[in-house]
Amino acid sequence: MKRFALAVEYDGQAFNGWQIQPDRQTVQGVMEQAVGKMAGHPLRVHAAGRTDAGVHATRQIVHFDTDANRPVTAWVRGVNSFLPAGVSVLWAQEVPEHFHSRFVATARHYRYLLLQHPIRPSLLAGKVGWLHQPVSIEAMQAASAYLLGEHDFSSFRAAECQALSPVKQMLRVEIGQQANMLYFDFSATAFLHHMVRNIMGALLHIGKGNESPDWMAWLLAQQNRAVAPPTFMPDGLYLTGVSYPAEFGLATEPDRRYGLI
Amino acid sequence: MKRFALAVEYDGQAFNGWQIQPDRQTVQGVMEQAVGKMAGHPLRVHAAGRTDAGVHATRQIVHFDTDANRPVTAWVRGVNSFLPAGVSVLWAQEVPEHFHSRFVATARHYRYLLLQHPIRPSLLAGKVGWLHQPVSIEAMQAASAYLLGEHDFSSFRAAECQALSPVKQMLRVEIGQQANMLYFDFSATAFLHHMVRNIMGALLHIGKGNESPDWMAWLLAQQNRAVAPPTFMPDGLYLTGVSYPAEFGLATEPDRRYGLI
Repeated sequence: MKRFALAVEYDGQAFNGWQIQPDRQTVQGVMEQAVGKMAGHPLRVHAAGRTDAGVHATRQIVHFDTDANRPVTAWVRGVNSFLPAGVSVLWAQEVPEHFHSRFVATARHYRYLLLQHPIRPSLLAGKVGWLHQPVSIEAMQAASAYLLGEHDFSSFRAAECQALSPVKQMLRVEIGQQANMLYFDFSATAFLHHMVRNIMGALLHIGKGNESPDWMAWLLAQQNRAVAPPTFMPDGLYLTGVSYPAEFGLATEPDRRYGLI
Repeated sequence: MKRFALAVEYDGQAFNGWQIQPDRQTVQGVMEQAVGKMAGHPLRVHAAGRTDAGVHATRQIVHFDTDANRPVTAWVRGVNSFLPAGVSVLWAQEVPEHFHSRFVATARHYRYLLLQHPIRPSLLAGKVGWLHQPVSIEAMQAASAYLLGEHDFSSFRAAECQALSPVKQMLRVEIGQQANMLYFDFSATAFLHHMVRNIMGALLHIGKGNESPDWMAWLLAQQNRAVAPPTFMPDGLYLTGVSYPAEFGLATEPDRRYGLI
């Protein structure tokens, strides 16, 4: 038995989220079909992050087990030839059996792309979030500093979240701009359900000037979802990478082959 | 009677090209429906460039005539509320009756976006062209210099082209790179049918090292489509702007609100 890790890119609009469902096209569903076809036996594909419907990935990390004896390129080119247009395998690497894409991950990286422009996006509809009014990047940067470090993120946790604990460590938040696009990069040990979209709602509330940056500290301290602004749209959310202990030798840096994305 | 010019952005994958067709969704079709609804009467919408199926626009320029007395914002916000997700009006401006989006245009601007990466694009499938092997930007830049100025572009003209003359003036070609994306910017007084995609085929042939840069001069001199490489895929082609005489006061610079796009 061998275990392989794959990096996978997908268009969240082409699927009903990651997790397999009967009668609906999901990323896990098409991956298990394609990898299983190459392996010659049915198998399970596990992902680092089970992204929601509409959420994209530039580098989701998944793994599976197989007895099939194939060159490593089979799990890239071969599998890609069985996958639909909206998903592709970027690389494959054999990993030891104590590797697990989800359980041994040390950090997850997300990017939120937001078009800040009076006119809604059409060319990249579904690929970018949209805000028609200007926002202060400086205010959002100041607010984001309160998110760094270990916190109880209950104020940004969806009701249906199944995480054992609401305490996570935010490792990095970076906010920048190119043309009319704002990008928000978040790295944390793990994320609660809807955590990035809920944090985006709060950051934009502050960016619009409705509250001052230190309101973020107050929000966090409440540990209460009901006091925070609504969940922001999924459109511009990308899982951009997953980090693992160095022993596995996996490429952990986000790889933006499209530039901003 | 008033004449209005609009700048329009659209996702070429959401439509069967610009030109109106019975029983197929086209950009002209949905524009005439939406603008006509706002005007309260049927009307014709003319475009600067009748883009093919799969070709995108970040700033197509169109115009129409109406007797309706509406504030200029009605032709932006109002029309946008009647348009499907894949198309949006960026701005509207009243223009004199001797303006014509197609006939008085002095230059058209196109960008071709190409992903140069071993793995096919999935996240931006249909939005970028794809080449799996490396190409020399320097060789393509050297080759593109031969395209500048007035030439008979018959070697890059599709058989079905309806232009009166194959002689056009290439004003600017610029080739650059960001991450794994190559961008090719072309500005010309006008373009023949499939001219950008045919030039892309020739540039990439040179970029791969199959021919030296001065082969481009030979190709042009042949004035024969049959000797040139095949038409490259439409996926990464964007109409990015149209120039008009200064008297009309229209914003003529390409406006990349998404960064590279």
